[in-house]
Amino acid sequence: LVYVAVMTDITLNPFDDILALLRDLPGADENALSLTAAREAQLIKPPGALGRLEDISSWLSGWTGKSPPQVLRPLVAVFAGDHGVASRGVSAYPQEVTRQMIEAIAAGGAAISVLARQAGAGLKVYDLAVGQPTPDIVVADAMSAKECVATMAYGMEVLAEGTDLLVLGEVGIGNTTIAAALCLALFGGSASFWVGAGTGVEGAALARKCEAVDAAVARLGVAKSDPLAVLAGVGGREFAAICGAILAARLQRIPVVLDGFTVTAAAAVLHAINPRALDHCIVGHVSQEQGHRALLERLGKKAVLDMGMRLGEGTGAALAVLMIKAAVACHTEMATFGEAGVAGPAE
Amino acid sequence: LVYVAVMTDITLNPFDDILALLRDLPGADENALSLTAAREAQLIKPPGALGRLEDISSWLSGWTGKSPPQVLRPLVAVFAGDHGVASRGVSAYPQEVTRQMIEAIAAGGAAISVLARQAGAGLKVYDLAVGQPTPDIVVADAMSAKECVATMAYGMEVLAEGTDLLVLGEVGIGNTTIAAALCLALFGGSASFWVGAGTGVEGAALARKCEAVDAAVARLGVAKSDPLAVLAGVGGREFAAICGAILAARLQRIPVVLDGFTVTAAAAVLHAINPRALDHCIVGHVSQEQGHRALLERLGKKAVLDMGMRLGEGTGAALAVLMIKAAVACHTEMATFGEAGVAGPAE
Repeated sequence: LVYVAVMTDITLNPFDDILALLRDLPGADENALSLTAAREAQLIKPPGALGRLEDISSWLSGWTGKSPPQVLRPLVAVFAGDHGVASRGVSAYPQEVTRQMIEAIAAGGAAISVLARQAGAGLKVYDLAVGQPTPDIVVADAMSAKECVATMAYGMEVLAEGTDLLVLGEVGIGNTTIAAALCLALFGGSASFWVGAGTGVEGAALARKCEAVDAAVARLGVAKSDPLAVLAGVGGREFAAICGAILAARLQRIPVVLDGFTVTAAAAVLHAINPRALDHCIVGHVSQEQGHRALLERLGKKAVLDMGMRLGEGTGAALAVLMIKAAVACHTEMATFGEAGVAGPAE
Repeated sequence: LVYVAVMTDITLNPFDDILALLRDLPGADENALSLTAAREAQLIKPPGALGRLEDISSWLSGWTGKSPPQVLRPLVAVFAGDHGVASRGVSAYPQEVTRQMIEAIAAGGAAISVLARQAGAGLKVYDLAVGQPTPDIVVADAMSAKECVATMAYGMEVLAEGTDLLVLGEVGIGNTTIAAALCLALFGGSASFWVGAGTGVEGAALARKCEAVDAAVARLGVAKSDPLAVLAGVGGREFAAICGAILAARLQRIPVVLDGFTVTAAAAVLHAINPRALDHCIVGHVSQEQGHRALLERLGKKAVLDMGMRLGEGTGAALAVLMIKAAVACHTEMATFGEAGVAGPAE
């Protein structure tokens, strides 16, 4: 990406290289889809009876190009960032909790530490200059366009050799405020529609959160029509890195599991540029955070799980990995009608 | 249960002993509930942020009396039965498939074989005289009261020493017809409301299924007001055995995971006798089978998963075991605010 950095100095738009990648995305592997569908039809069950598990097997095959589908090395990537807007009292927790949670995740005691182990997934936390917040989005852009592109490029580099399923999470005090601002800028509506309790704010703090989101998006002006300008303007580092990771996964044929409101809001930036940009992504769960269900409707996505969770970190997405592995196990380990000597439907 | 059998010969109602057990059911362990709630509040997350996972930890503690909760030896118990009503062409598959599926489960190639392995659960199949259907419920009671009690008693015996979570499944060509008849008799409404596609019937076969359910329940007459007479009249052996297993689990402090429409319809018989009878049961998933969602509403239950499945065998319940184990892992392995040095909410 050195080449990208050089080019951006002489082009008018630092985002041009990202936009070029997003214009020409690879599609699903039709051959792998056909092979998986053919085997699915032979397994000892009524057609379609495994519901979403069958959809998941098909999705994995299409985006990895492998039939039968497999998940051998899932990676949970947690992006951590701080936000200047936190100084406005929009969170129930102090900003130092972002750093403390990074340490807790590394020590193995956070919810995502437990659930990544439970799912048999690797876990890496990416510290995006935590302790150095981005500017308060109410008064200034979170990042310059060049900083935003550089952070997306950083996110594009996280895919370790051999990763075959990317599970995205985040931590960052203040980041549900950022997510709400992204949604308001991208989809319109009102701040109160997109702003939720986050870590648990209510009353005056919730009102401050709405006011901050309203003011930040108003400040954007006409830049609202450019999704990457929205990301730089009212986003944050973990959001940019998540966008980069989703894009890199697409280019490398690695399916992606999105988590809750924050991760999905980041993903929505890519969707606003190219509505097919998230076709390789599944949404692990629908969060209790107010805006998430509406956001999923805008993106045309149905979450795998609905567990009433609102923790972030990638916890809902990690839980969904258990379902994804179960889908693979059913598809690969079940007997066919012929193997098992089970009669098919009576005609 | 020899004593029970002797007593039923001299009492007017063979169901008296079952009814006596159902009148005086043990409740949840309040002390274990308190201990688990106290630890939950200390874990490094906003209160309630793990949603249903927190509810599951609490439920396990309450019904096992153990805090912290644990699941070391889950057992998937699959009850298999045949049904005379299958001769009316109410299923997409021939009746011999019941026997073939028992063999496929034992051979390890059925969906429940795969998902029980995936969940780290034991798996046992109970053959309730498969090949000897119960009488066609349209023209005669499925079982005499004494046969019904004996089959419930058989179901009560399935809990192996050490089982700490009972996961219920079933196989039986024709048994979604039976489940619909039970629901119609217990809850009223119309046959077409409770009858679904089962293994995949439509058109004329679906109409025959509705007619059979209507006729069977009409035949019951005033016996509809007695839930155990309903079970004997329009039920079947696997339904009676499931009732027995649920009841025995309650008495032995073993939480239960219900599966889809068929298992839940059996459970509804106990609920009709004592609305607290299913308090130790969680519903693993909501099935695509038409009547299941409405049945769960009648029972006041919210399923853990909604995966669009309609396979039976206990497959949805086994998938839910993955969520239950994840809940236990979070509750027991997460650090507390004190241990992790994470700040609590700003006041």
